[in-house]
Amino acid sequence: MRRGKVEPRVALDRFAQLPFRDLGFARADVHRELRQGAPEAVLGEGKTPQQVVEIVRAMLEAGVGSALVTRADADVRRAVRELAADAREHELARLVWVARAVPEPRGVVTIVSAGTSDGPVVHEARVRAELLGTEVLVHEDVGVAGLHRLVPALPDLERADCVVVVAGMDAALASVVGGLVAAPVIGVPTSVGYGVAAGGQTALNAMLTSCAAALAVVGIDDGFGAGTIAARIARGRE
Amino acid sequence: MRRGKVEPRVALDRFAQLPFRDLGFARADVHRELRQGAPEAVLGEGKTPQQVVEIVRAMLEAGVGSALVTRADADVRRAVRELAADAREHELARLVWVARAVPEPRGVVTIVSAGTSDGPVVHEARVRAELLGTEVLVHEDVGVAGLHRLVPALPDLERADCVVVVAGMDAALASVVGGLVAAPVIGVPTSVGYGVAAGGQTALNAMLTSCAAALAVVGIDDGFGAGTIAARIARGRE
Amino acid sequence: MRRGKVEPRVALDRFAQLPFRDLGFARADVHRELRQGAPEAVLGEGKTPQQVVEIVRAMLEAGVGSALVTRADADVRRAVRELAADAREHELARLVWVARAVPEPRGVVTIVSAGTSDGPVVHEARVRAELLGTEVLVHEDVGVAGLHRLVPALPDLERADCVVVVAGMDAALASVVGGLVAAPVIGVPTSVGYGVAAGGQTALNAMLTSCAAALAVVGIDDGFGAGTIAARIARGRE
Amino acid sequence: MRRGKVEPRVALDRFAQLPFRDLGFARADVHRELRQGAPEAVLGEGKTPQQVVEIVRAMLEAGVGSALVTRADADVRRAVRELAADAREHELARLVWVARAVPEPRGVVTIVSAGTSDGPVVHEARVRAELLGTEVLVHEDVGVAGLHRLVPALPDLERADCVVVVAGMDAALASVVGGLVAAPVIGVPTSVGYGVAAGGQTALNAMLTSCAAALAVVGIDDGFGAGTIAARIARGRE
Amino acid sequence: MRRGKVEPRVALDRFAQLPFRDLGFARADVHRELRQGAPEAVLGEGKTPQQVVEIVRAMLEAGVGSALVTRADADVRRAVRELAADAREHELARLVWVARAVPEPRGVVTIVSAGTSDGPVVHEARVRAELLGTEVLVHEDVGVAGLHRLVPALPDLERADCVVVVAGMDAALASVVGGLVAAPVIGVPTSVGYGVAAGGQTALNAMLTSCAAALAVVGIDDGFGAGTIAARIARGRE
Amino acid sequence: MRRGKVEPRVALDRFAQLPFRDLGFARADVHRELRQGAPEAVLGEGKTPQQVVEIVRAMLEAGVGSALVTRADADVRRAVRELAADAREHELARLVWVARAVPEPRGVVTIVSAGTSDGPVVHEARVRAELLGTEVLVHEDVGVAGLHRLVPALPDLERADCVVVVAGMDAALASVVGGLVAAPVIGVPTSVGYGVAAGGQTALNAMLTSCAAALAVVGIDDGFGAGTIAARIARGRE
Amino acid sequence: MRRGKVEPRVALDRFAQLPFRDLGFARADVHRELRQGAPEAVLGEGKTPQQVVEIVRAMLEAGVGSALVTRADADVRRAVRELAADAREHELARLVWVARAVPEPRGVVTIVSAGTSDGPVVHEARVRAELLGTEVLVHEDVGVAGLHRLVPALPDLERADCVVVVAGMDAALASVVGGLVAAPVIGVPTSVGYGVAAGGQTALNAMLTSCAAALAVVGIDDGFGAGTIAARIARGRE
Amino acid sequence: MRRGKVEPRVALDRFAQLPFRDLGFARADVHRELRQGAPEAVLGEGKTPQQVVEIVRAMLEAGVGSALVTRADADVRRAVRELAADAREHELARLVWVARAVPEPRGVVTIVSAGTSDGPVVHEARVRAELLGTEVLVHEDVGVAGLHRLVPALPDLERADCVVVVAGMDAALASVVGGLVAAPVIGVPTSVGYGVAAGGQTALNAMLTSCAAALAVVGIDDGFGAGTIAARIARGRE
Repeated sequence: MRRGKVEPRVALDRFAQLPFRDLGFARADVHRELRQGAPEAVLGEGKTPQQVVEIVRAMLEAGVGSALVTRADADVRRAVRELAADAREHELARLVWVARAVPEPRGVVTIVSAGTSDGPVVHEARVRAELLGTEVLVHEDVGVAGLHRLVPALPDLERADCVVVVAGMDAALASVVGGLVAAPVIGVPTSVGYGVAAGGQTALNAMLTSCAAALAVVGIDDGFGAGTIAARIARGRE
Repeated sequence: MRRGKVEPRVALDRFAQLPFRDLGFARADVHRELRQGAPEAVLGEGKTPQQVVEIVRAMLEAGVGSALVTRADADVRRAVRELAADAREHELARLVWVARAVPEPRGVVTIVSAGTSDGPVVHEARVRAELLGTEVLVHEDVGVAGLHRLVPALPDLERADCVVVVAGMDAALASVVGGLVAAPVIGVPTSVGYGVAAGGQTALNAMLTSCAAALAVVGIDDGFGAGTIAARIARGRE
Repeated sequence: MRRGKVEPRVALDRFAQLPFRDLGFARADVHRELRQGAPEAVLGEGKTPQQVVEIVRAMLEAGVGSALVTRADADVRRAVRELAADAREHELARLVWVARAVPEPRGVVTIVSAGTSDGPVVHEARVRAELLGTEVLVHEDVGVAGLHRLVPALPDLERADCVVVVAGMDAALASVVGGLVAAPVIGVPTSVGYGVAAGGQTALNAMLTSCAAALAVVGIDDGFGAGTIAARIARGRE
Repeated sequence: MRRGKVEPRVALDRFAQLPFRDLGFARADVHRELRQGAPEAVLGEGKTPQQVVEIVRAMLEAGVGSALVTRADADVRRAVRELAADAREHELARLVWVARAVPEPRGVVTIVSAGTSDGPVVHEARVRAELLGTEVLVHEDVGVAGLHRLVPALPDLERADCVVVVAGMDAALASVVGGLVAAPVIGVPTSVGYGVAAGGQTALNAMLTSCAAALAVVGIDDGFGAGTIAARIARGRE
Repeated sequence: MRRGKVEPRVALDRFAQLPFRDLGFARADVHRELRQGAPEAVLGEGKTPQQVVEIVRAMLEAGVGSALVTRADADVRRAVRELAADAREHELARLVWVARAVPEPRGVVTIVSAGTSDGPVVHEARVRAELLGTEVLVHEDVGVAGLHRLVPALPDLERADCVVVVAGMDAALASVVGGLVAAPVIGVPTSVGYGVAAGGQTALNAMLTSCAAALAVVGIDDGFGAGTIAARIARGRE
Repeated sequence: MRRGKVEPRVALDRFAQLPFRDLGFARADVHRELRQGAPEAVLGEGKTPQQVVEIVRAMLEAGVGSALVTRADADVRRAVRELAADAREHELARLVWVARAVPEPRGVVTIVSAGTSDGPVVHEARVRAELLGTEVLVHEDVGVAGLHRLVPALPDLERADCVVVVAGMDAALASVVGGLVAAPVIGVPTSVGYGVAAGGQTALNAMLTSCAAALAVVGIDDGFGAGTIAARIARGRE
Repeated sequence: MRRGKVEPRVALDRFAQLPFRDLGFARADVHRELRQGAPEAVLGEGKTPQQVVEIVRAMLEAGVGSALVTRADADVRRAVRELAADAREHELARLVWVARAVPEPRGVVTIVSAGTSDGPVVHEARVRAELLGTEVLVHEDVGVAGLHRLVPALPDLERADCVVVVAGMDAALASVVGGLVAAPVIGVPTSVGYGVAAGGQTALNAMLTSCAAALAVVGIDDGFGAGTIAARIARGRE
Repeated sequence: MRRGKVEPRVALDRFAQLPFRDLGFARADVHRELRQGAPEAVLGEGKTPQQVVEIVRAMLEAGVGSALVTRADADVRRAVRELAADAREHELARLVWVARAVPEPRGVVTIVSAGTSDGPVVHEARVRAELLGTEVLVHEDVGVAGLHRLVPALPDLERADCVVVVAGMDAALASVVGGLVAAPVIGVPTSVGYGVAAGGQTALNAMLTSCAAALAVVGIDDGFGAGTIAARIARGRE
């Protein structure tokens, strides 16, 4: 018997029953929404507008609730808008999306950010969480160097089922918020800043060493990931 | 008027109403359980056994639900056991704790680990989550190099309100699990391994770049943090 | 009682009495000058000219002594000049500012730099320190590879209440100056240089390991921060 | 006797019998194909189109089986096409090559990639392996976050004499494939991704710490190297 | 329908037919030898002697061809020898193993090392490759600073179906060998050395940037991985 | 004329008039106190007890105001106590010192720390600043995860002429304090913590990227440096 | 007496006798050639063409033997040519220089490089060494992957009083050459390459860990530094 | 014809005429002294005392001028002393050596160090340079924080044919010395220090970015390498 011939195939062949769309250069996982409650999204960066359009078309044809393209430059956004008249976009956050069947909102996600420059990541997280069916509340530019600016956000932090803290230059905000609220906190380090900010690495590490114990983080600038897990937490078991 | 004289004091003086115990070398935040639903824990490393004992005593006197000491060596564990007859310990995970009023369990946390050597972190997360009032299910050594070992864990992964993935050498487990389950996933990179494992840094980064979107991570070896946020997610809004 | 409901709010609600301007995308901390003796500044990078203008307008309306925009490109500088006829700018240092009520100068800050290319950071520090009310003396290009070039700076180093050393390629200047002067020394590593200069990281680390004991450093290229703390030291208790 | 005078010369002088072409700025190792079964290739980056053309001409005149230029921008590709009418190119992978005497295919190399954006590296490996005389099978976008997308690749993974796994964002694919197949696996980390992906460093380290034991890796984005060693493995001893 | 309930289970449930031994703290993948032609090995580090013994016993009972424990300290080696009278060990390489059914040797692996201190890694690779059924030839201490020392290894390098180069301080050996031989080359960086050797990181990176194109590397000090892939290459398709 | 013969000597020969003690293995800079107002200290690490004793003896004979040995293990401390009956020590902070002529205290330095484990660095800073003639006020364990613990420190933060913030795991304290106080702030990152704390590197970088503008930092664990510059700032121009 | 007032001034005031030109933004060390036998050069990067021209003019007026501008873009080179009719330039190496009194050549420097792309650094070193008065011999593209290409360089390596090895992708050349020649070897890592080449960091570290003992290195891409020290070594004591 | 069969062997077979001693675990390059003027040395670390003794014996039997063992612990030093009655040792520098035929001294090497703790590296360099036949002058603890301590070293710096600067904490000394002397300067970073000193990495980088142009460096703590190249430079062409 040839080594390895039979078993691995057996092990995975039931997978073949799960649907995906093979586009040659891409295999759209149109089953993910059913399996995990959140449709796959498309990273626009590194793909041509035409490739993005084909993936989005495949997703829509397969009946996803929403098709979101992140890191989409102007060309990609235009191409998707031409594909779908109901596409919407957010220039600052470089997003374009088509929402066909967004779940009824359940749960509240509150997003706070340390500075104005963190805006694109804030809105990437917001749009994603809204598309997954949550109410999202946003407070920008509440960095701890002026702690009193955090006060107006307190009622919304109390209401939250999940809090997202977005910060690049001064990640201390994650520690301060993490020490105050009762909800789980998701930190999103951003690449804002220069010098030792190191493209977000310092914010990432500072959040990870925070003594606020119910704090977990996603990757640098990953508003999409934060929006996804925050919505999943906020909606709870379904 | 002296610069800065009045305002900062005003800004924070209501804090004085919140209780803490001042031990000189430490200020035990005995209010945290009320504020955030989870009592403060004590990092045993870098403290003398006597310091740890004094902090634990202050916590118990203040009526915390549980007092957990992490990274506690044999001397620290013995000292705490001498302080409290009902103290329990876990040698491998270097834990000692006194549980006086653990909340009624609510929600399920499932922990899977990539290898046997990740055990100490697994159990740090498990004990913490149990002390905060959740049911915890554990499956160890299910690394993806032998994917079929993951099968017996599937029912418990389905039951989970929050999944914790502990992995050092082969963080791919977090991606695979993150692609399968519907619950939020918390990754815990461990410092197991040598060479480019880099004390857990590679596992950390690999988890953060995973394409499984509802995955957030805590610090390297931070089973305590994972247990805390997992329990908070699993118990939901209270 | 819902967990965490009452206390955090109590803890911070007195903050609400401190003024700030909410612009939606930004919250201008117009109270900072009163609280800390130095007005907030605006990081131009990552903001649109319109956003910068709105923040500066809010600051001026709130009566700040000066409004300084750092890392301001030509568009931002032009927009601010259009907002305020009395705005001034420094092209090399990418600064634009409006000075309405600069304190009477008190104390002397002496700035020395290792090379001509460190100029932008030198002038960012100088302008900030002058706006906070100090006399600033500057000696550029006095790197230690030609130690005799430092001689003409000695009288001004003696006069200083605080010395600022700006250096990228050859941070040894900070050690040499730190071993000579009696005033506190603030080091500013710059991102000048290539290869192992590593964007200023080597200069930063070299300054931090210097054996000159009264030397502290700010972030890479952070002339603004250096000017702020130097002015505060030079002016002394007020 | 002058130190070192005689011996080193003796040690290496038989080398002089091996042919190479001295172009002044370059010495084309036209002997490599005879010595190692694979002709030298030309790294287009950092060379002028004219330099590339001269090297390719020298190689062709020396009778190499194929002349491949990697990282060739549009100018370089055009220059080579003008040199040789039978030149072919791949825009996405920035390749241009002239195939004059490709060996009879022997052995099978199967390439799988994690995402669409890894395409350029996939095709650099494919073209190189084909030019060295192997059959190459490609499956793109089969990242483990949707494990069922890997199923259609299983028969081709079984057929392979060497498997190449190309992945940037989610290197977990290398571990999963490495745990399934019986052939040697070559991992190629790519610089796709942002933040902690760190230009491919995370994928590289994650592959190196994988517990799949018959996995070795080449440098980041080094499709050329992967194609070379994969072809050598797949063709076996000649 | 509860989200994610049915599908993931379907996707993986056929895995349950593949055998493994569940020891509670470990799940021995006793199926791997059948699936991939090479039995799983045990990393001794981070496990107690008792844990190692139980895993080895489970493997032997399941009929593996050989059970190899790497990074085994004296206690672990003694414990395994007590379990199996036919156990053998290599003190320098910290190995202990039980060989019950080693395949008939096929193919040749030649290992060369740069220095005497690389010995432990050399022998870890050698023992593993021999247990998988290859002939292994070893030449130690042939660093390029004295290139003539490489000469006696040339015939064995020519005979090899796969070459393994082990080097810590001076990874140049991998480039030199990679430029000479016709077989695939596997590099193993070692943590030998101090200062900028950086625990093997420099050797690793130097090998990855080598211009010898048919060179791939395994992790730092990973003699085990090198032996595994080298044997798989040398034995060829079975 | 021999190149370089005359000039460099001229340039430095007046230095010869400044006193130092040549001990062969060391040259004690007994002039530093006169020149810079603070005597040199001795780094105990990497020196034998006998070497330390000889340096301290030379300093005392030269009439320094105080001789402080940092990072002094038990042997070094004992040796210094045997040299000078009036030597004092601090075991936790690994200090031993002989104070012969401490200046009249002037100015106030307030030190706050994030956690109990930062204690050794706190006391190194405190002893140094006291020996240079300042009043020092200390508040330990006031990390921002329990912000109300900072309240009792507010009056002493207001009194300070210079504030020192010592923090390892959660450097957010430096940002919060830096946003509240009017005095210059010196941050001291500590190597407390594990995993991504990275031996203090994360705390260092987090402090450097803080948005609190009058904050400068010294090296990791460098309580000595912090005490020196803080005292110099607090005492002001003399 | 004000602290520090007299002594530092005394210590350095004889420096004032050494000449330099103060241009405000720069202080040209026109004394360096007399002191060290090699005139200062000008780093063009980070300076305006006008600044460069003024520095070069000051140097020429002071009578330097040669004025060399490195990293000079087209604008800078044109400006210098307009200043001095006898200026010469090297486009690839981004150099422009004016040679007025080059010393009689003495000694031989032989430069070898690993690849064509290392050319700019090769020529920066060559021009500098020639301007300092040495004969320079160059062999490009002799990387060790084709060791026989090194043979034609052997006679010139034997003639050399100092050897310079320039290499980016494959720093093994430094080890091989360092093991053959009797002259001191200066390594110059270059930023050529991608991925783990890490902008020259890998080549730098690989050279530093080389077992060839008479090898020292300069900074990444620092052809200027290599040319300077090589010339000084080759010319010997004067 | 089997690929690669003939040529590589031809290329290197003349090497076989160069002598070395094959000890199985080591191949002593006893030809190096003839070829390069400096005998090979033995790195004691990572070898057993018995291995070291056998290598030293082989070297002595082959008639080397001197046999030097670096990083030799007490056991290794004792073993070598037992082998050769005329062996000498330096405990602090962990050296043991047997000098049988040291060349007549020619040229002067001056070594300066920044601090007492750099002593072991200073003496490793000194002993090596003396064994190779140079006069060595040493000045320890002349760090730039007290620049006047450098004055007594000036005459010896002037006499030097090559200067070696050893520094860990404060690498500024290399810049200052490099700016003063006319001889080539070799920098040796040491691993002395803590925190951001980073085991010598900061000193290394600081030396490499120094603006003193005739400065090249060897690896961290590599006194051996520094002594070798310094002696080669100081002795000049032979």
